[in-house]
Amino acid sequence: MTPGSDAQDAPGARAARPDLSSATRGRILFGGDYNPEQWPEEVWHEDVRLMKEAGVNSVTLGVFSWAKLEPRPGVREFGWLDTLMDLMHAGGIGVVLATPTSSPPPWMGRLHPETLPRDEDGQTEWWGSRQHFSHSSATYRRYAAAITEDLAARYGSHPALTMWHINNEYCTYDWGDEAAAAFRRWLQNRYGTLDALNEAWGTAFWGQGYDGWHEILPPRRAHYMKNPTHVLDFRRFTSDMLLECYVIERDIVRRHTPHIPVTTNFMPMWVGQDAWRWAEEEDVVSVDLYPDPRDPFGAQNGALVQDMTRSQAGGGPWMLMEQAAGAVNWRGVNHPKPPGLNRLWSLQAVARGADAVCYFQWRQSRQGAEKFHSGMVGHAGEQGRTFQEIKRIGAELSLIGEEVTGHHITSDIALLHDWNSWWAGAQDGRLSSEVDYPQVVRAWHRALWEAHLTTAFAHPEHDLSSYRLVAVPQLYLLGDAAIENLLAYVRGGGTLVCGFLTGVSDEDDRVRPGGMDARLRELFGIRTLHEWWPLDAGEHAECEGFHGTLWSEELQAADADVVARYKGGELDGLPAVLRKGRAWYVSTLPEPAALRDLLAGVADGAGVRPVLDGLPAQVEAVRRGDLLFVLNHGRDEITVDVPGTHRDLLTGATVTGSLVLDRYGVAVLKP
Amino acid sequence: MTPGSDAQDAPGARAARPDLSSATRGRILFGGDYNPEQWPEEVWHEDVRLMKEAGVNSVTLGVFSWAKLEPRPGVREFGWLDTLMDLMHAGGIGVVLATPTSSPPPWMGRLHPETLPRDEDGQTEWWGSRQHFSHSSATYRRYAAAITEDLAARYGSHPALTMWHINNEYCTYDWGDEAAAAFRRWLQNRYGTLDALNEAWGTAFWGQGYDGWHEILPPRRAHYMKNPTHVLDFRRFTSDMLLECYVIERDIVRRHTPHIPVTTNFMPMWVGQDAWRWAEEEDVVSVDLYPDPRDPFGAQNGALVQDMTRSQAGGGPWMLMEQAAGAVNWRGVNHPKPPGLNRLWSLQAVARGADAVCYFQWRQSRQGAEKFHSGMVGHAGEQGRTFQEIKRIGAELSLIGEEVTGHHITSDIALLHDWNSWWAGAQDGRLSSEVDYPQVVRAWHRALWEAHLTTAFAHPEHDLSSYRLVAVPQLYLLGDAAIENLLAYVRGGGTLVCGFLTGVSDEDDRVRPGGMDARLRELFGIRTLHEWWPLDAGEHAECEGFHGTLWSEELQAADADVVARYKGGELDGLPAVLRKGRAWYVSTLPEPAALRDLLAGVADGAGVRPVLDGLPAQVEAVRRGDLLFVLNHGRDEITVDVPGTHRDLLTGATVTGSLVLDRYGVAVLKP
Amino acid sequence: MTPGSDAQDAPGARAARPDLSSATRGRILFGGDYNPEQWPEEVWHEDVRLMKEAGVNSVTLGVFSWAKLEPRPGVREFGWLDTLMDLMHAGGIGVVLATPTSSPPPWMGRLHPETLPRDEDGQTEWWGSRQHFSHSSATYRRYAAAITEDLAARYGSHPALTMWHINNEYCTYDWGDEAAAAFRRWLQNRYGTLDALNEAWGTAFWGQGYDGWHEILPPRRAHYMKNPTHVLDFRRFTSDMLLECYVIERDIVRRHTPHIPVTTNFMPMWVGQDAWRWAEEEDVVSVDLYPDPRDPFGAQNGALVQDMTRSQAGGGPWMLMEQAAGAVNWRGVNHPKPPGLNRLWSLQAVARGADAVCYFQWRQSRQGAEKFHSGMVGHAGEQGRTFQEIKRIGAELSLIGEEVTGHHITSDIALLHDWNSWWAGAQDGRLSSEVDYPQVVRAWHRALWEAHLTTAFAHPEHDLSSYRLVAVPQLYLLGDAAIENLLAYVRGGGTLVCGFLTGVSDEDDRVRPGGMDARLRELFGIRTLHEWWPLDAGEHAECEGFHGTLWSEELQAADADVVARYKGGELDGLPAVLRKGRAWYVSTLPEPAALRDLLAGVADGAGVRPVLDGLPAQVEAVRRGDLLFVLNHGRDEITVDVPGTHRDLLTGATVTGSLVLDRYGVAVLKP
Repeated sequence: MTPGSDAQDAPGARAARPDLSSATRGRILFGGDYNPEQWPEEVWHEDVRLMKEAGVNSVTLGVFSWAKLEPRPGVREFGWLDTLMDLMHAGGIGVVLATPTSSPPPWMGRLHPETLPRDEDGQTEWWGSRQHFSHSSATYRRYAAAITEDLAARYGSHPALTMWHINNEYCTYDWGDEAAAAFRRWLQNRYGTLDALNEAWGTAFWGQGYDGWHEILPPRRAHYMKNPTHVLDFRRFTSDMLLECYVIERDIVRRHTPHIPVTTNFMPMWVGQDAWRWAEEEDVVSVDLYPDPRDPFGAQNGALVQDMTRSQAGGGPWMLMEQAAGAVNWRGVNHPKPPGLNRLWSLQAVARGADAVCYFQWRQSRQGAEKFHSGMVGHAGEQGRTFQEIKRIGAELSLIGEEVTGHHITSDIALLHDWNSWWAGAQDGRLSSEVDYPQVVRAWHRALWEAHLTTAFAHPEHDLSSYRLVAVPQLYLLGDAAIENLLAYVRGGGTLVCGFLTGVSDEDDRVRPGGMDARLRELFGIRTLHEWWPLDAGEHAECEGFHGTLWSEELQAADADVVARYKGGELDGLPAVLRKGRAWYVSTLPEPAALRDLLAGVADGAGVRPVLDGLPAQVEAVRRGDLLFVLNHGRDEITVDVPGTHRDLLTGATVTGSLVLDRYGVAVLKP
Repeated sequence: MTPGSDAQDAPGARAARPDLSSATRGRILFGGDYNPEQWPEEVWHEDVRLMKEAGVNSVTLGVFSWAKLEPRPGVREFGWLDTLMDLMHAGGIGVVLATPTSSPPPWMGRLHPETLPRDEDGQTEWWGSRQHFSHSSATYRRYAAAITEDLAARYGSHPALTMWHINNEYCTYDWGDEAAAAFRRWLQNRYGTLDALNEAWGTAFWGQGYDGWHEILPPRRAHYMKNPTHVLDFRRFTSDMLLECYVIERDIVRRHTPHIPVTTNFMPMWVGQDAWRWAEEEDVVSVDLYPDPRDPFGAQNGALVQDMTRSQAGGGPWMLMEQAAGAVNWRGVNHPKPPGLNRLWSLQAVARGADAVCYFQWRQSRQGAEKFHSGMVGHAGEQGRTFQEIKRIGAELSLIGEEVTGHHITSDIALLHDWNSWWAGAQDGRLSSEVDYPQVVRAWHRALWEAHLTTAFAHPEHDLSSYRLVAVPQLYLLGDAAIENLLAYVRGGGTLVCGFLTGVSDEDDRVRPGGMDARLRELFGIRTLHEWWPLDAGEHAECEGFHGTLWSEELQAADADVVARYKGGELDGLPAVLRKGRAWYVSTLPEPAALRDLLAGVADGAGVRPVLDGLPAQVEAVRRGDLLFVLNHGRDEITVDVPGTHRDLLTGATVTGSLVLDRYGVAVLKP
Repeated sequence: MTPGSDAQDAPGARAARPDLSSATRGRILFGGDYNPEQWPEEVWHEDVRLMKEAGVNSVTLGVFSWAKLEPRPGVREFGWLDTLMDLMHAGGIGVVLATPTSSPPPWMGRLHPETLPRDEDGQTEWWGSRQHFSHSSATYRRYAAAITEDLAARYGSHPALTMWHINNEYCTYDWGDEAAAAFRRWLQNRYGTLDALNEAWGTAFWGQGYDGWHEILPPRRAHYMKNPTHVLDFRRFTSDMLLECYVIERDIVRRHTPHIPVTTNFMPMWVGQDAWRWAEEEDVVSVDLYPDPRDPFGAQNGALVQDMTRSQAGGGPWMLMEQAAGAVNWRGVNHPKPPGLNRLWSLQAVARGADAVCYFQWRQSRQGAEKFHSGMVGHAGEQGRTFQEIKRIGAELSLIGEEVTGHHITSDIALLHDWNSWWAGAQDGRLSSEVDYPQVVRAWHRALWEAHLTTAFAHPEHDLSSYRLVAVPQLYLLGDAAIENLLAYVRGGGTLVCGFLTGVSDEDDRVRPGGMDARLRELFGIRTLHEWWPLDAGEHAECEGFHGTLWSEELQAADADVVARYKGGELDGLPAVLRKGRAWYVSTLPEPAALRDLLAGVADGAGVRPVLDGLPAQVEAVRRGDLLFVLNHGRDEITVDVPGTHRDLLTGATVTGSLVLDRYGVAVLKP
């Protein structure tokens, strides 16, 4: 692992396992979810023809095939899948084979109603959609293990098989009785004694003290606000139960095929999974990514997810499991991708570490809930613009595959992110419902992206020593180990810049005396945090040189330098931004340009420079290995200065000193 | 039936049945719901006096009288109703007698909880309001049949009886267990085999394949989006179950009184009933109509419902069962009718085919949930402005009754509308939640109304040959028969103009290859529909000469003439409006004036002219039989050119060449 | 009781009971809720030190201690509370001892699920928050009585005990089966016969007639609008059931300690309790008061609650049981109090009759749902600004205690308010959802507050003879006794001014003929109320000299003088404000300045003058006993004319002729 690359403390155990390279072998994987069971067999042959035409080299089979594979309990119907595996192999197309366990057959809910989840209000989530399984149901787990076992036994040695895909977008919750029992076991394991639980949850408040484990329920509908640590632990428990489901199936396929890598597809920055923990259990980290084509910050949001996924993969290659060739169908208004955008965002993913560019799904469905979700082959068919663009992307990926696959990305900056902190900070009963953690993280990432600074993500307990700059948008909850890690990082010469609402509570969501951990106050040179002053929606806090949004604070400095003060209002003259040496504290959310300039300045002070100097806004540049990706997110042609001489791998042209990019244009430059 | 009149394919069987004329006999029915059980008996006599004063000739009795007629299971208390029937008869007032089955007595829910509906979440709808019955409950149906039987037996030969009114505003749903069993029977009947159902629903998507009928449930609360065809069939099933309830009661009263016409009152363009099918089972088509007095398009919305109801009645007379004399009480803010508006809208209904102008209700309730819903006699009583206006309306209706009743309305234009298409297009998981089918239909009807073109409605499978112009605002779902019908219509010389999202899916909501049926693309001269481009709320798509809203499309023409192109944006230069001969396709929703001019132009090309030339905006003119109704919806006096000489039936004045109408003024002109 | 003071008809029985003076003894109570069980014992001693430093003389113990006092059924653990009672006594701090019954221990819900409330939809409110008890549960009541008995027995003679605090913020509902049975008993008691109930509820409407008591349920989820009188009675029942819970516990502690006063803390103008009735059952009336520091009308809203609480206390001293030293944590965005605001609002409460200024809570919690709700000692601790201000407040209250405690406040004006009317007027199915009763009351109180007129509140059946002016913002429901009371008041020389929607319905919510009681129409000189014309949100009704909001009316005057007419629109020229002698009727809600001037003018005509002449806006002046409180709610220094010579009790300075007040400054002047 390169010094300075992301997530240096990834578990050593990973080295012994197969990884994405065992599937890519010098090619970027290109393809997508393939659901041939929705089509008559004659279409399958047409599909292979078109896949070849488009350069597709990988398809995911079986994601939702449980009812077809096991039409009634214990019965197996593998014939159709045999045919398809063989057909793919004959076509030279690798198969990512999915366990079908995210959508149990209708018979399961009917015969075993206890496998159905209950929501917070006690209402059943019935079959007829998908993901109608309780993560805690022993019955569900038994059936899921059995079908996984049989799939692995049957196809483990099939030559088309390149990867295992477990379940799909784990995202369920359950407040039911079997989950309650599992929650109690999980709590016993975490706390050992009821006294410890009562202490951690602070049940003395509102007279919630538990006298027996059997008294504990999931945090169901209640008269008023719930115990926040109870809710926090239920989030931890839910992530862990889903992870257990994953591990059960993973271990089965690993036993059959130790040489085949295993993944499950994340949703981008999904609130329900602690993906740092999950990534450690995967051979390949994969993600589904659907920025809104209309979102003016769609490219940056894409970059954020790509940076985070890459960091979860230890800085190494990752898999873009799902994206859309055109529109999705789950927003209020679903816009298609204008010409060129699919290509631009696909190459952006490669620039930021993807060695696989895949779609949901190959052929757009004619029926079912997602028939208006685009496919690589849309309703318009082969002559449709969408498929024409897919062919171009496939061709270009095959041009650059050899040069790009396997390469890591180096970053001098880490943004810290932690699910526990997100969960704890997002509770009811906090000071401001306007503070939305993902929006704050996005604002900070956007500031760095607009400053053309390549960023990794890290967990607050990761080894941070290789980064020149560590930025904390907001870590409301910080355990002692994390705090000590930050202190050690600064002591070791690192530069740290922290946003507001950081270090407020400990791992049990217990507010630290002073409202911010004393060690952090000492680090930033803050004597007293008198009061938090959250801002209303649309309200600004004027500061010297900029305005802040969302939040402000009534702070008394000790030995900090005051970088900027509040102006006017109740906080007039009080410090807004402070620093004590290499430790900076930002008590508000500066407006975007101000945050960009602030972070660029701090980065510059820490010796971190943009990828290229003088880059226009809307042009993104990323170095991956020795390649330089330059991407124009604007709709106008633009000239970009690129010192030296390069070859553009996409066109073969030689680029000297500068480069002209069309609307949505991309160059992949090799020195 | 006059050639060119609405709904020519109405079932011949209707001819053998009594119709509205058996109740009207040359008078326009005038009156309303009468709920004397809410009042002491002395008020009944006062009511008769005031009814006579107001020209009331018809009241509806018994709509919500079940608990009074059957205070406990099997008991009958008819005495009070005997008195009232006799009293009405003595007063010369006909009775529309209702079966009371829309509000079962409290004892039914208590003794038979299975008669109570369950919602999507499994929650019971308890008694204490109204319409707390499960359409599928055998117990409910048995009790409903019994009370209907006894009512029909007792009053079938009462001289006051003029019509039967079954139930009231059928509008319930049920996701409970008895409904589930009925749904399965309905599905078995529709599909025959599970394979056919699995194929029609596309259950291969998301692994929803059913292995036994008992696995199928109503589309209850689920984790994510439901199967759209499942939901569509549940809508069809619900409409059919309610219709079964209606038919059971209708057949009972028909057996007793074959000479008395039967109706049930529709809500205007209500989503839950396929009123085309329902109307075929009625002797009289009736509707409840409550435009908001504050709605600037209230008059046009009224006209739309009147046109649709008349078309459901085969172009012949229909019954306005309920309107409000003043305010309703179920909007957020409920406005009264300003002076003259009640009269104006009442005469508008007559102009558009009503032979009955009735109200909910005669005397405003002092108690209960609707005590702020106006009555013909309001809280202000006899001296109140509202009752004074009622008297004028009654007097005027009696003036024109003989001339107007029984007459049909001729229309050269049909707007196509189908509930199946509405249901299928309104599902979750579509491309734009901004597209609201009723709003699109309203926009097209408004365009024709503002162009002073009288319009009928038709089902897409009706015989359309008598119309010069057929307009399709939007028919997302079109079965093969409907498509062939449209093709035949154009082949036969008809002019067709179609809005976007038409012909997208088949009867099972299966998207047709190409995203629009190939025959329709051929008809309109479209080669490829590359992508749908829905527009955000408030977003405009600039086109040559106008702007579009809601929707746009990336279309490639084959042999169509491009009438208007998109300007600017991603679709710059692509066709927005196309025509191929007499077949027009409009890929966006033009702004109102543009749609009005477009449709007026197409109509003109098809030889259809406005009712009168040079009509001011806000003046509506309708021909019914040989009468010409002219209505001023504006608040200022206006002069209207009317060629020739007429007599105004309301004033007796002779009108030559032109006519002056006051604010909200109306003339009923006879040549 | 002084003539002219509030609520002269308070029950004589109160005189025999101990009251707030038995706890104050010449000091203003200062302190708050104290929850030491959330802290280790060493903190308790630190707490006593800081309490003494801050002048705290009263704490409330045990509000949420049930699980700690009774960790399992029947077990008692009083040791920790013994220690604390002794510690408080040793520190000279009195204890308001709470029964812990608002938050049953988890074991209760688990062992006795019937103690958990069900909501309207039948869903259980589980433990894990607070207030998860059914007011109708016999089991809950038995356990609550037992712990209350044991607490009273153990601490009744403890020298620290100064007051009993029953439960906390009674505010629960229950639609479950045990509540249903209790509701039926309550209804039998109210109506005697089913016929009377059917008559009162108007069940003839929509066929809701009940044939047996067992058919009656709480107004659970239904298909459409519910019976309004059913819902009204359920509100009455709920208030009465909660009151029963209170009385059970109150009687227990009274039996043990007849000399100790008893209270329960109201929420300000809380919809769920008829606080007029409740106050009669208390020895001390107490309230929790949390105006939003950002609310520009926060001070006036505080004054309203203070005026109402004082009036409930018969015009005499009351207890501010809870306020916040800084931010609360249950709004969307929770703002802290800027410097000085806590002091200003605390002294405002004293000015308006409080003899106790207490907080939730002493020490801000580190855990649980309210850890971001401020405390007297905040997270910032002893050095935090918040605690520094607390110390100042404590010191100042001790300066003025002797002079102020026990004194009543005289008012010449009464605003009438009644929960029954609020409940009846807030139903579904009314004419305008924009009309919000509390907002209308606030608007009228604000008008009087801005006119510097001190106001009491009264129930419409109270003896009103001592007031010069009675104002009725809105009393939709008025029983005959109340109407006769108003008529007698005017006959007796009083001046009455009434807002719209007054006298519409009787005690059963039966609309009175004419839409407004005939006696009231006669009183105001109104012949006919033709129609109500509610206004849309943001809509104005232009009137002579001002514009109205929310509502307008189509009125025909009889012998009234028309004070102002509507201008333009449908009501042009019709009366908007009428008077007949001393009876005024206002048919709209005038804009704030217009309502202020209108009411000030009517008051002046009735001989009522402001507290001081020439008071600037934002300065509030109140006389309590012979003291004159002057409060500056503005953020700028201001000079106030105060005729004569006074001593400012807070500074000791002599004030002659005028007074300078800082931002948020207060003077307490003694002649």
